[in-house]
Amino acid sequence: MKQFRLNAFDMACVGHIQHGLWTHPRDRSTEYASLDHWLSLARTLEAAGFDALFLADVLGVYDVLGGTPEAAIRNAVQVPLIDPVPLIPAMASVTATLGFGVTCNLAYEQPFAFARRMSTLDHLTGGRVGWNIVTGYLDSAARATGHSAIMAHDDRYDLAEEFMDAVYALWEGSWADDAVRADRAAALYADPARIRPVHHHGKQYRIDAMHLCAPSPQRTPVLYQAGASERGRAFAARHAECIFVNPSTPAHVRTLVADLRARAAPRPLKVYVGATVVVGRTAKEAADKYEDYRRHVSVRGALAHAAASLGIDFDAFAPDEPVRAPDNAIGIKSNIDAVSKQLGPDWTVRDLERHFVLGARQKPIVGSPQEVADRLIEWAEQADIDGFNLARTVIPECLEDVGALLTPILRERGALAPAGQGTYRQRLFGAGDRLAAPHPAALHRW
Amino acid sequence: MKQFRLNAFDMACVGHIQHGLWTHPRDRSTEYASLDHWLSLARTLEAAGFDALFLADVLGVYDVLGGTPEAAIRNAVQVPLIDPVPLIPAMASVTATLGFGVTCNLAYEQPFAFARRMSTLDHLTGGRVGWNIVTGYLDSAARATGHSAIMAHDDRYDLAEEFMDAVYALWEGSWADDAVRADRAAALYADPARIRPVHHHGKQYRIDAMHLCAPSPQRTPVLYQAGASERGRAFAARHAECIFVNPSTPAHVRTLVADLRARAAPRPLKVYVGATVVVGRTAKEAADKYEDYRRHVSVRGALAHAAASLGIDFDAFAPDEPVRAPDNAIGIKSNIDAVSKQLGPDWTVRDLERHFVLGARQKPIVGSPQEVADRLIEWAEQADIDGFNLARTVIPECLEDVGALLTPILRERGALAPAGQGTYRQRLFGAGDRLAAPHPAALHRW
Repeated sequence: MKQFRLNAFDMACVGHIQHGLWTHPRDRSTEYASLDHWLSLARTLEAAGFDALFLADVLGVYDVLGGTPEAAIRNAVQVPLIDPVPLIPAMASVTATLGFGVTCNLAYEQPFAFARRMSTLDHLTGGRVGWNIVTGYLDSAARATGHSAIMAHDDRYDLAEEFMDAVYALWEGSWADDAVRADRAAALYADPARIRPVHHHGKQYRIDAMHLCAPSPQRTPVLYQAGASERGRAFAARHAECIFVNPSTPAHVRTLVADLRARAAPRPLKVYVGATVVVGRTAKEAADKYEDYRRHVSVRGALAHAAASLGIDFDAFAPDEPVRAPDNAIGIKSNIDAVSKQLGPDWTVRDLERHFVLGARQKPIVGSPQEVADRLIEWAEQADIDGFNLARTVIPECLEDVGALLTPILRERGALAPAGQGTYRQRLFGAGDRLAAPHPAALHRW
Repeated sequence: MKQFRLNAFDMACVGHIQHGLWTHPRDRSTEYASLDHWLSLARTLEAAGFDALFLADVLGVYDVLGGTPEAAIRNAVQVPLIDPVPLIPAMASVTATLGFGVTCNLAYEQPFAFARRMSTLDHLTGGRVGWNIVTGYLDSAARATGHSAIMAHDDRYDLAEEFMDAVYALWEGSWADDAVRADRAAALYADPARIRPVHHHGKQYRIDAMHLCAPSPQRTPVLYQAGASERGRAFAARHAECIFVNPSTPAHVRTLVADLRARAAPRPLKVYVGATVVVGRTAKEAADKYEDYRRHVSVRGALAHAAASLGIDFDAFAPDEPVRAPDNAIGIKSNIDAVSKQLGPDWTVRDLERHFVLGARQKPIVGSPQEVADRLIEWAEQADIDGFNLARTVIPECLEDVGALLTPILRERGALAPAGQGTYRQRLFGAGDRLAAPHPAALHRW
């Protein structure tokens, strides 16, 4: 049987993917800015058998719908949103093995300071950190950070290639493995002959400096990526160790996964698909829970999110008018294709709204523990994937449900990959702490 | 009696101010990259009666001495160095009242993302965070981040003024106090009419965006600053709530403090001076401890640090040759003046080295609890200051000594300001959580 892993997919805000559920009386997502909320979440995840917590992030607001962020603000659609990075060491302090993935958009970072921040996380978590490489697609984020408009898609990937080269040089190439001596008797902390400056003189960045951090357990954090365009897949095949894939059908995902694995070969890839589960002790309990949750869905919130991710202002269309993406849409092209595949070529806003069953386009898996386990096992086998990113519904109960009802049966059936020992990379790939050749990061080694 | 506060002055690295002491067998500073180290430190500080932990930071290395970072690397002089920001929420999770100050150099930050990071810290700590505003003086930091050389001194303050204006607008002006409604029944999370975008179109930054974070307890973090030049003092008088002052003599500091208070009036200022104490149960025990510590001092490390902060390569001078600062020295001019005041106009490298009594220029206060308390009380009275930033020597014992021996007697004598309730700003100033007029931040309010 194909073993797989469960990541919790979350974001440091009220509404992440399933919009409107914050209004449920048992939901605690409005406590997103409290430390206790995250410490408790981390403990719950580790106890529930999750492999890692994955934190999404954006540096802008969803203001495509009606040309304003109004619907996003009213429905807490990823706004307000705090910085996920400072949460991670605190959560690491109350867990032993849970991995932490975090999204950082490289378009708004300086590689030198960013490299230090990630090395810091890797040190403090004992090598439990992953980075989801994002190049950004929000015009509002560009306007927030002094750019007049977002860069063209392929330019973003050029920038990303250069950024990766710079941070690999800092993480992998600046300090030799044996640079730190910490020899009290000789009064020698580190050996200058085993540390070298990085000289990166590129089109976008210029660095003449040694990395400020001593070697952390993994050096380069575990690299996640989610690009689905041609250029995005090429980038992922070159850099990513783990890939997020949109769930469509197992057969379609299988084709995509085969393509990604072939491109990355001989490097192994872990592929995760997004999923939402509603599990109850019985099918009836699950169905009732699902109906209860559904009463709290915000269709308008889901529409605000979809408008931004597709780059289409749905308010410009009548409810039954076929939606056409503008020529200059800045949304993710593959998202538009996915919707057309799901709803047909002449889909309308009304069609789309009908698909927001739980406040998002993603259809949840609802059922008894056996039913949900069957469905996940089937998905993993058929699509040849390595894990699921489970989006939250009503927290913390949806995570507690996974721990109490789902992971025991997945374990019983041998479907859940064991947590394993060591750094996050070691646990995922069973090999060393560090990226190995032919990964481009390994070229920067001493 | 003038009451005062104790800050612990530290940095997320091995050697901070007193260089070489990491070689002492009881010193634990080599554990700077471990989370447990910082959690334990935070607990120790709170138990010992410290008011706040202040974390210094630089984004470069000390490479002025001999034109290389060799001496800094060998002696762990602020390198390696991790990012202090991610430490703060973890430390907040194990303490109740301890404040956290952190240095961030605005020259290497984008105001939009930086404002979110600080709001995040303020939320997660429940309003216990302060920011030490630094505009930077290291050429190596400029070269690390893509600048060919550091900006001229006054240009840095122009940049800083604009940066402050932008972050005040985000922190204080974007969300009205009542913007967040979190009304489940009405399915209204926040009121769009009570949130507005910031439009900052300046010389250096351009922002057209709402702040991503809902109002945090303090909004603007407590503002620290340490500028001593004419332009630095003017900046401090306009923006800072707390000021760090170099310790010279109480009389000299008193004059400086009077000037700063007069410039800031009617706003109150808290002024802190740096100090190093070595306290023992008896004068003899303290003297023995001091001698024991001194055997571990790194003169070369102290010289590397001083060379960078003064902008003078001491290796270019014979040991007994009077040192002259180059015309284009990029060090802090007031640091050079302070050394000349301390050592006389024709000081030599040998003179300077003689003053590195504990691995830094700062002369420690050594004695029994009574003696050290007397000295601090006298200093606070004579110099009219509000607190001390105590540099570490051998950790954690130097902090445990303060808790066991010094704070009890300071409390007994009524010299220690009570910890107080509420946010860090409230505890310091006894007024509200937020900056009040005539502070320029208050101008951005709704």
